[in-house]
Amino acid sequence: MGNFKGHALPGSFFLLFGLWWSVKYPLKYVCRKNKSVCYLGSRAGLQRLEFVEGIIKAVFALIGMVAEQFVPDGPHLKLYNYEEKHWDHLMNWQHATMYLFYGISGLVDIVAHGTNALPVAIDRMMLSLAVFIEGFLFCYHLHGRAMLDIHVHQLLLFAIFGAAVCIFLEVFFRGSIVLEMLRTSLCILQGSWFWQIGFVLYPPNGSPEWNQTDHTNMMFLTMCYCWHYAFAFLILAVNYTIVSCLVVHQEGAGSLVILVRKALILQGC
Amino acid sequence: MGNFKGHALPGSFFLLFGLWWSVKYPLKYVCRKNKSVCYLGSRAGLQRLEFVEGIIKAVFALIGMVAEQFVPDGPHLKLYNYEEKHWDHLMNWQHATMYLFYGISGLVDIVAHGTNALPVAIDRMMLSLAVFIEGFLFCYHLHGRAMLDIHVHQLLLFAIFGAAVCIFLEVFFRGSIVLEMLRTSLCILQGSWFWQIGFVLYPPNGSPEWNQTDHTNMMFLTMCYCWHYAFAFLILAVNYTIVSCLVVHQEGAGSLVILVRKALILQGC
Amino acid sequence: MGNFKGHALPGSFFLLFGLWWSVKYPLKYVCRKNKSVCYLGSRAGLQRLEFVEGIIKAVFALIGMVAEQFVPDGPHLKLYNYEEKHWDHLMNWQHATMYLFYGISGLVDIVAHGTNALPVAIDRMMLSLAVFIEGFLFCYHLHGRAMLDIHVHQLLLFAIFGAAVCIFLEVFFRGSIVLEMLRTSLCILQGSWFWQIGFVLYPPNGSPEWNQTDHTNMMFLTMCYCWHYAFAFLILAVNYTIVSCLVVHQEGAGSLVILVRKALILQGC
Amino acid sequence: MGNFKGHALPGSFFLLFGLWWSVKYPLKYVCRKNKSVCYLGSRAGLQRLEFVEGIIKAVFALIGMVAEQFVPDGPHLKLYNYEEKHWDHLMNWQHATMYLFYGISGLVDIVAHGTNALPVAIDRMMLSLAVFIEGFLFCYHLHGRAMLDIHVHQLLLFAIFGAAVCIFLEVFFRGSIVLEMLRTSLCILQGSWFWQIGFVLYPPNGSPEWNQTDHTNMMFLTMCYCWHYAFAFLILAVNYTIVSCLVVHQEGAGSLVILVRKALILQGC
Repeated sequence: MGNFKGHALPGSFFLLFGLWWSVKYPLKYVCRKNKSVCYLGSRAGLQRLEFVEGIIKAVFALIGMVAEQFVPDGPHLKLYNYEEKHWDHLMNWQHATMYLFYGISGLVDIVAHGTNALPVAIDRMMLSLAVFIEGFLFCYHLHGRAMLDIHVHQLLLFAIFGAAVCIFLEVFFRGSIVLEMLRTSLCILQGSWFWQIGFVLYPPNGSPEWNQTDHTNMMFLTMCYCWHYAFAFLILAVNYTIVSCLVVHQEGAGSLVILVRKALILQGC
Repeated sequence: MGNFKGHALPGSFFLLFGLWWSVKYPLKYVCRKNKSVCYLGSRAGLQRLEFVEGIIKAVFALIGMVAEQFVPDGPHLKLYNYEEKHWDHLMNWQHATMYLFYGISGLVDIVAHGTNALPVAIDRMMLSLAVFIEGFLFCYHLHGRAMLDIHVHQLLLFAIFGAAVCIFLEVFFRGSIVLEMLRTSLCILQGSWFWQIGFVLYPPNGSPEWNQTDHTNMMFLTMCYCWHYAFAFLILAVNYTIVSCLVVHQEGAGSLVILVRKALILQGC
Repeated sequence: MGNFKGHALPGSFFLLFGLWWSVKYPLKYVCRKNKSVCYLGSRAGLQRLEFVEGIIKAVFALIGMVAEQFVPDGPHLKLYNYEEKHWDHLMNWQHATMYLFYGISGLVDIVAHGTNALPVAIDRMMLSLAVFIEGFLFCYHLHGRAMLDIHVHQLLLFAIFGAAVCIFLEVFFRGSIVLEMLRTSLCILQGSWFWQIGFVLYPPNGSPEWNQTDHTNMMFLTMCYCWHYAFAFLILAVNYTIVSCLVVHQEGAGSLVILVRKALILQGC
Repeated sequence: MGNFKGHALPGSFFLLFGLWWSVKYPLKYVCRKNKSVCYLGSRAGLQRLEFVEGIIKAVFALIGMVAEQFVPDGPHLKLYNYEEKHWDHLMNWQHATMYLFYGISGLVDIVAHGTNALPVAIDRMMLSLAVFIEGFLFCYHLHGRAMLDIHVHQLLLFAIFGAAVCIFLEVFFRGSIVLEMLRTSLCILQGSWFWQIGFVLYPPNGSPEWNQTDHTNMMFLTMCYCWHYAFAFLILAVNYTIVSCLVVHQEGAGSLVILVRKALILQGC
């Protein structure tokens, strides 16, 4: 994972989920508020969506784990090199462990929303734990790297632990649109920051290397992190506006249809 | 911003907001408790107030951003000096970023209270985030400064992060007078401490410099910080008392007016 | 305050309050549960008690402030020594500041429970802040002392910040017997640990000095701290038991009195 | 306790409790959801169970305390060696103190669930405190050890403080199945990690020693810790499934019995 692709890939996953959530949660909220009869506003529709999300999460996690193990320079399920007496490809194993917990979270989503055998709130607890474990492994991941490398990953930890706390709060305040939008924004931030890390540490296309020990670079990146967050809110705002307009428009259209029908019926009479 | 004015200006903004809140929230609370028909106690009046607050916040933030960019020794929107290969005026850019998030918070206030398209609690979340981002940028702002300089800014961080947590709690306990007064006190504290920092680091009028490495200075300033906080509560108490008296008095006057009218009507009969 | 008495005095205050609370809160709880008509169970009785507590707190704080200022080697309200250009008796000023916030908390108690002008929950917020400020000042109080000295004061900080968090939670979960007992136990712990600090750092009666750099001393004191806490719970348990028995007994007695009266009335018939 | 057995023993206790809870809480939840008339779903049955748990906890704690004191190389209640002027067997005393608080928690369980003299929520507060004190003593326990030794114990602290926070939350969200399962998983994790520590620091059966200063060992163990946690969830999932099936099956069987009886009665008619 120590290359550009290795950061762009998870970044894309997080961006994908963040963008999807930035549509899903506003849609859910606007439907509920307008007592609109769109599919997402109903309990059954929402449950099916969460179920499908769980499957996608589990599949992504599985792909991630398999990829980390069986890339050409991966460990191929070998954990300890007995000949040379050292651990084998610990980095890949750590990444696979991170994916493992997202996989568990996906499985729990599938069971909790596919059957009603499990208490529903447990899906948030498992997701919160998966995010926490990701941050936890990152914490012990950075030993002995360059200053800038550590700094950009530390910034990532804010988004990760912030999301973990936010999702844990959702266990108790389930369906709070504010928490859901906070989570969405942190998810987009994490995704776009992964891309930024890729660009900073492994500049593609022969761009010049960043000076790893320059303190002003650190200060710029801290600020840049905030801009990413502002950008995440911009995306959220745009999607919220589009969704709101569509729902209201659809309702207007719906009412029109109903009016026309009523008129026809009246005429028919 | 590395001068007296640069600390006095934001300090004044925070003081202004703190003082306004120290009138607004007691007024709201007293009106509600006395079931008084004052404008602020009503839902519509409150919403309009929040709307106006949002506009003022957004305008102040815009002014702040423009000022940081276009002061004579500012970056004038230039981020990177390609000739000398270094970042340009990072301090000003960081301050502009802080203002940016207050601006976003102001915009969200305007939309949330001007229309009813947004969930109301989101205004508190954005304000909390704006305050948090301010503290976050301050944290990475202090690298390589003198001991006393770091210390006075660290003390500021207590007020900032305390306010961020307090406002985040308001998402869940909206309208809690206790949290609102805590926030107000922390806002006044932040404002008056900005002034104090100005006086300590950039003594105006040719006062002698503070010894930046004297440990007793640090101890005094820690204590002084507490006095500022006590002072913030004094202001809050005075304003609360005045507001209470006025509301009760106005009610007394109001009842008097009603009594007089009734008497006149009776006499008229 | 750098002597045995200076630690025994505040320790006694905290012990006094802790012991009083260890009677008051069980009494309140048992009365409520048994729907007993004892004075403490009623709203008015409780409010008067809190009012009196506020007065005592304010008076104690005033005495503390005056004592810190006007002891023979105190600052006598002089903050800065202009001749020798240094701060004067900062320690005493810091302790006076701690007392100041307890005084404010006492005043708020008096106003909140003496009149109904203030929201009730504000008394807990101010107490929480007073305890927090105490801890905050202690944090910046320990610079440059011996290892054991720092350690025993750090242990104290656990009780202080624990109590501050616990009281802040009471703002939202007011009247929760569990939080009230937790606060009581932490208050007793703080009181008895102040005494322990006095014995360790300023052994009275010519006991031998503790070795300030011996690591086993630190380990013992950490453990000793836990014993103090277990002891606090013992006191709480004993008082709870006594109070429970008395209330039930009094009720039994009360029922007996009622029975006897009824019998007499019947006989009188 | 500085040997393999000394870590396997407490590990077994925690595993035992964790495994028991991984049966108890799903059983309680499934019974309640299915409105099944199993004993555990009823209030009285649950209270008796908690009572018995309290007794077992108190007995285990007593055995632990006695064992720590009276093992051949234990302190035999001697705290200070007056001849050689040093503390005696502080480690054993610290472990005994940890057990003491679990003992207090057990006693509180017994009183709270055996009588109704105590507020029920206090059992969780005492358990939370017992777990916290365990972590607190561990924190000051590790001074001057090797890097790997410190690391594995620090990892343990995550499980301990996580459990303490989780149980404290249960004071306010009592009976939340999500928190109960989180606690269960952290308890199993703590138990299995105690075993792992034993295997790492005191390899039994003449296995080779772990290199205490190799950084890759630390990275592996961090990851291994996550696997233990995944394993804890696996156990929880298996037990949950078994319990669910049994309850549903038993109900099916119960309904069958009822059907058969009804049929017989009808035939009898």
